[in-house]
Amino acid sequence: MERVGFIGLGIMGRPMAINLLRAGFPLTVWNRTPTKTQALVSEGASAASSPRELAERSTVIITIVTDAPDVEEVVLGPQGVVHGAKSGSVVIDMSTISPRATREIAARLAQHGVHMLDAPVTGGEVGAQQGTLSIMVGGERAVFERCLPVFQALGKRITYIGGSGAGQTAKLVNQIIVAGTLLAVCEGLLFAARSGVDLQATLDAVSGGAAQSWQLENQAPRILRGDFAPGFMVKLMQKDLRIVLDVGRELALSLLATGQVHQLFRALEAQGLGQEGTQALMKVVEALGGARARLPGHEG
Amino acid sequence: MERVGFIGLGIMGRPMAINLLRAGFPLTVWNRTPTKTQALVSEGASAASSPRELAERSTVIITIVTDAPDVEEVVLGPQGVVHGAKSGSVVIDMSTISPRATREIAARLAQHGVHMLDAPVTGGEVGAQQGTLSIMVGGERAVFERCLPVFQALGKRITYIGGSGAGQTAKLVNQIIVAGTLLAVCEGLLFAARSGVDLQATLDAVSGGAAQSWQLENQAPRILRGDFAPGFMVKLMQKDLRIVLDVGRELALSLLATGQVHQLFRALEAQGLGQEGTQALMKVVEALGGARARLPGHEG
Repeated sequence: MERVGFIGLGIMGRPMAINLLRAGFPLTVWNRTPTKTQALVSEGASAASSPRELAERSTVIITIVTDAPDVEEVVLGPQGVVHGAKSGSVVIDMSTISPRATREIAARLAQHGVHMLDAPVTGGEVGAQQGTLSIMVGGERAVFERCLPVFQALGKRITYIGGSGAGQTAKLVNQIIVAGTLLAVCEGLLFAARSGVDLQATLDAVSGGAAQSWQLENQAPRILRGDFAPGFMVKLMQKDLRIVLDVGRELALSLLATGQVHQLFRALEAQGLGQEGTQALMKVVEALGGARARLPGHEG
Repeated sequence: MERVGFIGLGIMGRPMAINLLRAGFPLTVWNRTPTKTQALVSEGASAASSPRELAERSTVIITIVTDAPDVEEVVLGPQGVVHGAKSGSVVIDMSTISPRATREIAARLAQHGVHMLDAPVTGGEVGAQQGTLSIMVGGERAVFERCLPVFQALGKRITYIGGSGAGQTAKLVNQIIVAGTLLAVCEGLLFAARSGVDLQATLDAVSGGAAQSWQLENQAPRILRGDFAPGFMVKLMQKDLRIVLDVGRELALSLLATGQVHQLFRALEAQGLGQEGTQALMKVVEALGGARARLPGHEG
């Protein structure tokens, strides 16, 4: 059985680490803010004093932090995983970062005989808690297959996409579709509200056919009751869409709709609303539409 | 039991009329192209020589034609329904036309003591054949309830939205969401294709979570195998989006995303592709993205 090291005990990482413990994996944890390791230690994990020390004790090292610089710091930094990891061990980065940064980190690790998989997730805090995350994996297939028992402790839909970076690409595809679908839902709701029709009846009518989506089913009801708590924060979606547009620039790829929704989310950030859930996009769509027929629950 | 008159035996109307016959409703039919009535007559319907004559024989008159001028012609024209309909009868318009035109026609009918419901549908040809359409209804609630047995012969999800025009508004909301969601799916596919990842694996990975939608499940596979047959034609979607944007103008309502996707579909129409299915939107998104990494099945 793999000895697992886990770096990054945030909203996602903490419940994921608990699921690994419950699945029986010997677990070592490290977090930038050390107090967050306490809860895991009381559940049976041991704490390491650095990513390096964590790597020395582990055969599989999972990282789930915010962005590429954070991954680079814990993997390649002075006290990083690379200085402790044995040849043949595996780093699984479950953060969402750029495919290019992923491939660069993987190349550095390969110089030390350490494998890397990129394995970003979707499914949010609830999926992390319930072990029902979707996991999109890039890297060598044999390494993926070796790590499958680890993934199965964390998620339900586990898909091998392709070589290094391919998991990150699939995650970015996911975010492009999520953001664009949400914008469509917001614009439909705005049209309904300004037309004066019963919003709930309209939602009921359209949610069973070609307009159906996860965003419509899950976000529209939150919007109608004025609930803008995250779910998934605007500022994290913006980080992901920034990566999408960076990749677009590298590939000379025009992404009209994604560029637009990124700018609309930026208007939310400019209003200090970056910590709200992505469904707060409705506030910008509504402001564009004019102030005359506010949706219920929306502030002045 | 209502005696039903049915006007408009097109792709949608013909199977709907057959379902009414099979449900036992005495049926009179009329179509602008008279030869199309033959199949219905052989199933037990009688043919009328004009909408006026059809209305004389009916207590409920259904119209499903293309656009507002067509509805106005068959309902209010020289040989129109209004000249034959008895006081207390009901016109159910199942076309997709503007809420304003609906209210104007309803007002004209009311002067003759004739009720009107607007009851546009979604679910396409297959839904029409199988009697599983979604039907969104506007008008007086008591008239809706009287006509419920007729609707139940045609569809499954039957929703009363509100007063005259509200059914049309709900249908337009549906089309706003459908078009925007489809654009998001196309842009996600483009990103995946240009990044060089396995498209099927990527679709499998993203289709179970927050990116899930009817458009993703039904249109993305068609796009991947280069199948651009309608489904729902670009030119009909454009008619509906034109109505959306007309209503937006009347309400001084900015619809940024819908305006954008309408213009993208226009590029398709300009290439003579208005008769393809809406999933052909991928061709424009792909052309915008540059020609270097074509999706499989796409022509030069």
